[in-house]
Amino acid sequence: MSELISKAKKAKAAAGQLIGKTTKQKNEALKTIAAQLIEEIPYILQENKKDLDQAREKGVSETLIDRLMLNEQRIRDMALALKQLALLNDPIGEVLESWERPNGLKIEKVRVPIGVVGMIYEARPNVTVDASSLCLKTGNAVLLRGSSSALNSNRALVSVIRRALEQTKLPQDAVQLLEDVSRDTASQMFKLNQYLDVLIPRGGKNLIQTVVQNASVPVLETGAGNCHVFIDETANPQMAIDITVNAKTQRPSVCNAAEKVIVHESWAKKHLAALARNLRNSNVELRGDEKAREIVTDLIDANEEDWETEYLDKIMAIKIVANVQEAIDHINTYSTKHSEAIITESAENTKLFFQLVDSAALYHNASTRFTDGFEFGFGAEIGISTQKLHARGPMGLPALTSTKYTVHGNGQIKK
Amino acid sequence: MSELISKAKKAKAAAGQLIGKTTKQKNEALKTIAAQLIEEIPYILQENKKDLDQAREKGVSETLIDRLMLNEQRIRDMALALKQLALLNDPIGEVLESWERPNGLKIEKVRVPIGVVGMIYEARPNVTVDASSLCLKTGNAVLLRGSSSALNSNRALVSVIRRALEQTKLPQDAVQLLEDVSRDTASQMFKLNQYLDVLIPRGGKNLIQTVVQNASVPVLETGAGNCHVFIDETANPQMAIDITVNAKTQRPSVCNAAEKVIVHESWAKKHLAALARNLRNSNVELRGDEKAREIVTDLIDANEEDWETEYLDKIMAIKIVANVQEAIDHINTYSTKHSEAIITESAENTKLFFQLVDSAALYHNASTRFTDGFEFGFGAEIGISTQKLHARGPMGLPALTSTKYTVHGNGQIKK
Repeated sequence: MSELISKAKKAKAAAGQLIGKTTKQKNEALKTIAAQLIEEIPYILQENKKDLDQAREKGVSETLIDRLMLNEQRIRDMALALKQLALLNDPIGEVLESWERPNGLKIEKVRVPIGVVGMIYEARPNVTVDASSLCLKTGNAVLLRGSSSALNSNRALVSVIRRALEQTKLPQDAVQLLEDVSRDTASQMFKLNQYLDVLIPRGGKNLIQTVVQNASVPVLETGAGNCHVFIDETANPQMAIDITVNAKTQRPSVCNAAEKVIVHESWAKKHLAALARNLRNSNVELRGDEKAREIVTDLIDANEEDWETEYLDKIMAIKIVANVQEAIDHINTYSTKHSEAIITESAENTKLFFQLVDSAALYHNASTRFTDGFEFGFGAEIGISTQKLHARGPMGLPALTSTKYTVHGNGQIKK
Repeated sequence: MSELISKAKKAKAAAGQLIGKTTKQKNEALKTIAAQLIEEIPYILQENKKDLDQAREKGVSETLIDRLMLNEQRIRDMALALKQLALLNDPIGEVLESWERPNGLKIEKVRVPIGVVGMIYEARPNVTVDASSLCLKTGNAVLLRGSSSALNSNRALVSVIRRALEQTKLPQDAVQLLEDVSRDTASQMFKLNQYLDVLIPRGGKNLIQTVVQNASVPVLETGAGNCHVFIDETANPQMAIDITVNAKTQRPSVCNAAEKVIVHESWAKKHLAALARNLRNSNVELRGDEKAREIVTDLIDANEEDWETEYLDKIMAIKIVANVQEAIDHINTYSTKHSEAIITESAENTKLFFQLVDSAALYHNASTRFTDGFEFGFGAEIGISTQKLHARGPMGLPALTSTKYTVHGNGQIKK
């Protein structure tokens, strides 16, 4: 039997055992993992160094090295996150709805674990701990498929986690690492509906699209953010500038950073020059459509590709529109349906924008950078879903759960 | 441009227009469709007769002819269902949660349409009206891909629906029928993530598995029911017999009918003979494991295949177990995770069964036949989901919705 099938079977069995475990047991395990991670810092760093050495030998970029790198602080941060996760409410067992039917049947809708989660990710070893702990908290078993470049680090982290599971009497196989990271195994994993209940890809656009396009196992899609800020006619000028600069520059490499600013023509006539100056002061390269270039004449010409692109960099394209409807239409055409903001003093236009823009998170007079599980107050984040089924927007612990109906009767039969 | 792409594009545009429509407009459309269906009975029956004639020429089975057949009563039933659907609450726009963050951001989670639904189904023309109306009520556009054997009927029904949409100022392209029902087109439809937000296959196991295995568009999987009744040691004998007979025989061809009865050995010694007699009186063919055959000696030998099979017929297999845990393990091994019942006077065993059996709907002292959107009080049913993401168990209108987050601020930026 292949490593994949053997571990998938064990994961399914572990998922069955996890169902009976209490919140206290799961939290105890999370706290034990936290303690062991700190105790094992020298061992983890020694194993991480092997991955870093190999990466340097291969001459990979410093950005990739940084993603791969663990240090004492990063491990302490992981441990802290585990302790905070232990403090969160356990969603499992929660009764979401209950009602009684005229025939006396008492129906409850109860939150339950999903079962087995297949996690597919790239070089960041912190995802190993993050995914394992979120799955554990929600009573799911997880099969981890990381990158070969992080294999030593992942192996070390998983061995620490599994030892802590054993100590706290939880099934060790609730967390397993696939060491065979070949493409064939990945393809097989995409189709393993028999054992896997969901796949979660975490990483770049290509990885996610490969999983979405090829998986028959349901996918929790976390996606790209071609996010927009629309500055309406009545927008407060300083607020609009502050929000746009923040949404673009506070952390340009993340999915909730804004990539485009759409500006109402009246506002643009008065304030676009100031907006452009402020963005350029923050080292943002500006591109613009024809009307924008009439006002700020030295903008780079924005083309069709610009409207579609998630730059993930200090670049922003400007489009001028005649009204809110034109802004909405542009966003619905080019957006990746992640996060969009309207800056306006008009309640009517806000309502229209909120109703008609088809994206996961919509903001009125606030930065798109708030689309995040922690900023939303969830206390944890699995990722940010840009799909419409199961979960949309920032995903907290409930996104890793399913439900079942339990029905109490006293002999009811169907007439 | 192919018919598929052209209609998918139009569906997406229609979905955008539907978002702005009111509950009143949608209900008006549903009532107009109902009225027009009744007005057009002669035309619909004339078109349906073409399909029936073709089917008879091909010599298809009477069961298939029955599925394909419309008559005045069936069309009146469709119209009635439409009128009832118009009376149900509109889930769209419902605020599911709202809270305020310490920084003053006011967050709401709002129910919205999914967008474009791809419906893939077999010979029943009633699915055409059913799917169209459920999608309409929830503000979704639908692209219908029925069977070639029902093409004339579907075309007639869709033309009636589209005329009613036009009359009530809703976008006609909210309901479209694909006339090219080739396999190639179906395969292309499975991968049309650009335009389709969800695929819903309705029909036999093969159809559903083809869609699940090949689609990159998310699928709402409605599935098979290898349902179990477990009769525990303390079960009331008459109640256990009544429920088992009902679950097996009230309508054996449907997914929530029971296929297996698992019996505690102590109960079996006293009452299995009576249970078998009652089932046989209802013309059920009985199969059993070794222990069951020791008590009812003329049972057919049940083999491994029996435990896996959804008979959809008057056949039932009997398994004897020593305790509730053995019953749970058997169910979790062989069940399709649809519906299972425990008949017992023990609250403790019920709790264990409800917690550990991994199926969509679990019953205590009631028939599995109640797993149904109408029996659950939803007033409508999209199908019964046996998957764990998005929706599980009977699916009412909310299963055809997604959510978005809307956030009101007053200038908040991320620090």
